[in-house]
Amino acid sequence: MNQDYIKPDNWSIIEEEFDADQVKSSESLFSIGNGAMGQRANFEEHYSGPTFQGSYIAGVYYPDKTRVGWWKNGYPEYFAKVLNAPSWIGIDINVNNEQLDLFTCKKVENFRRELNMKEGWLSRSFKFTLHNDNEIQVEAKRFLSLDLDEVGAIQYSVTPLNSDADLVITPYIDAGITNEDSNWDDTFWNISNLEVKDNQAFIEAQTMKTNFHTCTFMQSECFVNNQNVGLQPQVIRTDNKISFIYKLSINQQETFTIHKFGGYTAGRNHNRTELIQAAQTVLNKATNLGFDELLNKQKQAWAKIWEMADITIEGDVEAQQGIRFNIFQLNQTYLGTDATLNIGPKGFTGEKYGGSTYWDTEAYCIPFYMATKDQHVARKLLEYRYNHLEKAIENAEKLGFTNGAALYPMVTMNGEECHNEWEITFEEIHRNGAIAFAIYNYYRFTGDYSYIPEKGMEVLIAIARFWHQRANFSKEKNKYVILGVTGPNEYENNVNNNFYTNYLAKWCIDYASENISKIKDEYNSDFARIMNKVKLSEAEVSEWKQVADNMYFPYSEEEQVYLQQDGFLDKELITVADLDKSQRPINQKWSWDRILRSPYIKQADVLQGFYFFEDDFSTEELKRHFEFYEPFTVHESSLSPCVHSIQAAKLDRMEQAYKFYLRTSRLDLDDYNHEVEEGLHITSMAGTWMSIVEGFGGMRMKDDMLSFTPKIPKQWEAYSFKVNFRHQILTVNVNQNETNFEVNGNKDLRILVNDKLITITPDNLVTV
Amino acid sequence: MNQDYIKPDNWSIIEEEFDADQVKSSESLFSIGNGAMGQRANFEEHYSGPTFQGSYIAGVYYPDKTRVGWWKNGYPEYFAKVLNAPSWIGIDINVNNEQLDLFTCKKVENFRRELNMKEGWLSRSFKFTLHNDNEIQVEAKRFLSLDLDEVGAIQYSVTPLNSDADLVITPYIDAGITNEDSNWDDTFWNISNLEVKDNQAFIEAQTMKTNFHTCTFMQSECFVNNQNVGLQPQVIRTDNKISFIYKLSINQQETFTIHKFGGYTAGRNHNRTELIQAAQTVLNKATNLGFDELLNKQKQAWAKIWEMADITIEGDVEAQQGIRFNIFQLNQTYLGTDATLNIGPKGFTGEKYGGSTYWDTEAYCIPFYMATKDQHVARKLLEYRYNHLEKAIENAEKLGFTNGAALYPMVTMNGEECHNEWEITFEEIHRNGAIAFAIYNYYRFTGDYSYIPEKGMEVLIAIARFWHQRANFSKEKNKYVILGVTGPNEYENNVNNNFYTNYLAKWCIDYASENISKIKDEYNSDFARIMNKVKLSEAEVSEWKQVADNMYFPYSEEEQVYLQQDGFLDKELITVADLDKSQRPINQKWSWDRILRSPYIKQADVLQGFYFFEDDFSTEELKRHFEFYEPFTVHESSLSPCVHSIQAAKLDRMEQAYKFYLRTSRLDLDDYNHEVEEGLHITSMAGTWMSIVEGFGGMRMKDDMLSFTPKIPKQWEAYSFKVNFRHQILTVNVNQNETNFEVNGNKDLRILVNDKLITITPDNLVTV
Repeated sequence: MNQDYIKPDNWSIIEEEFDADQVKSSESLFSIGNGAMGQRANFEEHYSGPTFQGSYIAGVYYPDKTRVGWWKNGYPEYFAKVLNAPSWIGIDINVNNEQLDLFTCKKVENFRRELNMKEGWLSRSFKFTLHNDNEIQVEAKRFLSLDLDEVGAIQYSVTPLNSDADLVITPYIDAGITNEDSNWDDTFWNISNLEVKDNQAFIEAQTMKTNFHTCTFMQSECFVNNQNVGLQPQVIRTDNKISFIYKLSINQQETFTIHKFGGYTAGRNHNRTELIQAAQTVLNKATNLGFDELLNKQKQAWAKIWEMADITIEGDVEAQQGIRFNIFQLNQTYLGTDATLNIGPKGFTGEKYGGSTYWDTEAYCIPFYMATKDQHVARKLLEYRYNHLEKAIENAEKLGFTNGAALYPMVTMNGEECHNEWEITFEEIHRNGAIAFAIYNYYRFTGDYSYIPEKGMEVLIAIARFWHQRANFSKEKNKYVILGVTGPNEYENNVNNNFYTNYLAKWCIDYASENISKIKDEYNSDFARIMNKVKLSEAEVSEWKQVADNMYFPYSEEEQVYLQQDGFLDKELITVADLDKSQRPINQKWSWDRILRSPYIKQADVLQGFYFFEDDFSTEELKRHFEFYEPFTVHESSLSPCVHSIQAAKLDRMEQAYKFYLRTSRLDLDDYNHEVEEGLHITSMAGTWMSIVEGFGGMRMKDDMLSFTPKIPKQWEAYSFKVNFRHQILTVNVNQNETNFEVNGNKDLRILVNDKLITITPDNLVTV
Repeated sequence: MNQDYIKPDNWSIIEEEFDADQVKSSESLFSIGNGAMGQRANFEEHYSGPTFQGSYIAGVYYPDKTRVGWWKNGYPEYFAKVLNAPSWIGIDINVNNEQLDLFTCKKVENFRRELNMKEGWLSRSFKFTLHNDNEIQVEAKRFLSLDLDEVGAIQYSVTPLNSDADLVITPYIDAGITNEDSNWDDTFWNISNLEVKDNQAFIEAQTMKTNFHTCTFMQSECFVNNQNVGLQPQVIRTDNKISFIYKLSINQQETFTIHKFGGYTAGRNHNRTELIQAAQTVLNKATNLGFDELLNKQKQAWAKIWEMADITIEGDVEAQQGIRFNIFQLNQTYLGTDATLNIGPKGFTGEKYGGSTYWDTEAYCIPFYMATKDQHVARKLLEYRYNHLEKAIENAEKLGFTNGAALYPMVTMNGEECHNEWEITFEEIHRNGAIAFAIYNYYRFTGDYSYIPEKGMEVLIAIARFWHQRANFSKEKNKYVILGVTGPNEYENNVNNNFYTNYLAKWCIDYASENISKIKDEYNSDFARIMNKVKLSEAEVSEWKQVADNMYFPYSEEEQVYLQQDGFLDKELITVADLDKSQRPINQKWSWDRILRSPYIKQADVLQGFYFFEDDFSTEELKRHFEFYEPFTVHESSLSPCVHSIQAAKLDRMEQAYKFYLRTSRLDLDDYNHEVEEGLHITSMAGTWMSIVEGFGGMRMKDDMLSFTPKIPKQWEAYSFKVNFRHQILTVNVNQNETNFEVNGNKDLRILVNDKLITITPDNLVTV
């Protein structure tokens, strides 16, 4: 944990010193993205210190050969790597024959870096002193345009403070890059063409194997004291790099500024043969607007996002900064405009975990996108899985399933499994349930049932078939059991009868059956089309029901709790509080066998079930289970604190809820796990949003209405959030005394507040 | 299975056709070794078809970097690879400008290969036809000397049958080799010196990282019609190869013969700087003896081995050939002369599994070596583990154990763990028990208690400490449990309360405690030395006993059997007989999760416990457990059929015992698992020996005496085996009517036969 490094601020992430040891962490924290591409906050100028260089293009990946010590049948041959893309941000700066390099220069003063979340830009300013004692002021600003999402812009200024300066300024594009996580020094790009036309430079490169075609481009303009000086560069090319070299001399206190525009066009959006042409088009658009006007549009675009998604917190700057950082990063990662993209666990901020899509999307991200965007965004996320259904069926076939049963991959880019640890790949099958749950959750929230007959039903059937086949009848228990699974708590592997998995399996079958009946009754033609496609008989459905109706759930009469899995009570039940601090985090201190036989829980497992299926359990039951399991929970997954925060709030454990909230919202800003340099935890950021809206705000769906039970941590004066509910925006403002509701549009909105029905008329504040 | 390829023969392995598809399998089956080195039966002459080239030097390995998809704390950084060593066998043959290559020549006739097990040599003969229709007869014979164990000899003859022949004969040594199993095309050898002196060639090469120094050498002599023609070769060197080129012309029907001597001297036996000198010495010894005399000595040395180790079977050639093949290969692999060596699972016949030492040594190999060699060989195998005790303690420390607890590695070369699958490396901990059991077994059989106070006690204490720490108290069960293990049946991972493991753990503690008391009483000075070293208090021992006395064993009242682990009865209990044949072997057909949740058993698990601790259970109990578990056993481990054969014999299920016997003894000869091309299953061959001696012969130790309950399969007329019991050789000869016992030496031997005490006087046959 590194609590004081980032300066508290309502709207910005601010760093006020230059510390080489923090460079890699700050490169993660100050990352920028626009949904189509993103990049770590690497410096434009040369930097010789430790750095993790990363630029990423959405949907561009590489199927690396799976290498395991001991092969198991069913492992995928390849797994997807997030690929570092060619860089377009570089600008080498040479002043009076010395290269600007913050790591080696004589002195750095007044270093300040700001990620302005309100307006969507990153800036740096600092004064550096050369070894010849020349002092130079640098100001840099950079953003990735939301309007022209293939382009980014940099404004980089140099002012010699105490001497005249001979400047050599070298913006470049560079395809000679490798992956940070490439253990084997592999390269992943073939460079096919380097071209310079009219002061614009282009490098065409294709990923190996996947053959994603990209064109990386740039164009620059030079100014002295804000006057375009029409400098023409000398052009240098190597095999994988194009540099423009500008040479000029300026006087002391004069300011040289370069505007550099750069970015990528890619084969997924353009004809492969027209990538340069597309790049020219977008570059011309950007340069015609100019840096300032493009930045203005950026501010407007972000204002529009915030208008819908912002959460305000009064009286607690750190909490405010935390939630905005989370909302900002989610919007930098995924905007819902492309049905083939998804929300990678590290977004565009690092390479760890490979793949883009985990069950995180369904379990954690969909609620956020559903409530802060138009509902078509959530529907796109559901369709992503519908489009992968055939591959999920193939995946299940590899594991011995038949008859159209589907197992969605643990990690994927294109629907194919790209994970290779048997205890996860083959056994962490609850992910299937989350995908079904998201369909229910979408319908419950949006009221848009049409998705189910159109697409969702096929997914629900394939998932129900999976659970039906995966369970087996235990004569011993006279019940159906599910053996050999890994639950959400990945600190248990290959366990029998994980409560969460069994419960989800039963629910999936029940929900699929219900919907089959409903579609049969209400959507005749869809029903006929689906049945014709999936060949489902009533007899098969009643076989499913047999399993669902007789599912086994491990339960302790003595503790009056459902057991996380068979045998949980055989463990040495020492609580986390009684565990020596030197042993934490256990995933860094203990060998895997020791973790497995311990009672320690990585993230909500039984409690995840209580979260999804809250209405099936009484608050008393929740209390008992929370009190039993939370003390064994080490929260070593970024996805853990949010669910616990929501449940603590529900149980009126507000101090605990607040602590969990801070942990989830500032996980990266305060670097709780000493790993932020590897990138940010993007998907858990949606959990942070949930912990305010569902936790403190108590938002639920009840009787087809929004329902709230507003609470507020004592540390806060007030907080507010907005919910896009069925095409109306509801604003909820909670302070220590009351809650105010306001709705836009022209329809009354009926909601429940503390179980009381309230009708809100548009543009009239209702106070409760 | 490939049942008819190898010709039945009492003493030889014979192949009578040339089939390119069989070359790799035959390269395994006809492998030769002398304990110090070994090699696959690669052809001397060039062969361009599919081949797996392999020459191995005992104790020479390479610590390859562990590469796993997902790292777990505690994994070893390196794992040992068995290294392919430079080859010295090559002799290129060129006849009338055409290279001899069985894969490409016009015709091969009368191909015959023989591995003569009685005398320890390998031969080939064949007639091949060149594309110009020249016909050439080839005879080749090769062996690795037991007398001079650094040297091997080849006699290779060429006779042109229908024309005169210009011959170019090129013996060579070649260090430009790689490993068959090298996924990453790595090389493992640095070549430091190539030298030729007086018709002897030397290549000095060192393994990378481990820096094992070796010198590969050769010398040749040429004969025409058995007359040494004193040919001097032309010498060619490349970076990694030295070739001698002999050119001569011979007439039709004349025979050219080359004698080639070659082999290795290594830094583990000589000063690194004197390897060439040592090579010269051994080459001179060998060439002074000459091929024929060295071969004579080879026959004598093998006769001596057979005199002690042979098992005869009358009336069943295939069974006879099988057992001799097993005994022969074991003796080719390990002769007990070097305490730093051990019995690799593939011996010198392949590279799979890396490492040399598994629990196979203690559980399967020690009984064979104990009864067929002087007892110091078995003691050396025990000392091997004693010498690794410190590393086993370090290994346990990495997994969180303290206070001198030891966990022996799953796989090792030098005492360090070199396996990297968490479910095996960290959890297949029963291996520790087999190491303790072997100490008991050694004492029980040899009566040599001295090993325990001198060395064994420390090992027993460290192992007892491990079990004490590894168990934990379950309040739920009011017993000690052992959670998260993998038993001998590796088709279950991370299970709780594996009966075998729990039983072994209890036994280890009990046996350690007993011996502490005994040594305290009877070996004062050893006791003082040990206690001073290991700091063991009586209080600690009584804590151990607490665990042993209250160990939990899963048991089904209904089935009246101990359960393999908690929850076994929840499985879908379909027997192997009812499993569709197309699903077998399940390890090739099923994904790992499916195997894990199935009831199918890879090798004896509960029944392994009944094998080790037979006296603790009634025959009735054995019968019940055998009848419960064997029907679920797929015997997909080479170590499975032998134990089942022994138990089937004990239960008078002689047909089944015979079937298991054939499967274990001809596993490789008949290629049951379609994998013999990867190498032979050396360690399970000791199990084959046990299945005759302990299975059919019913040999046990009872009341400090040998005990027998002889039985004979109805397919056999008679069988006999010998046992080196406490410096006397007992010969047991069983036929369909009676059993004959004979003992050498000058002492009476008292044995039990079918529980009746019999006294055998030296050199008097006793018939029962």
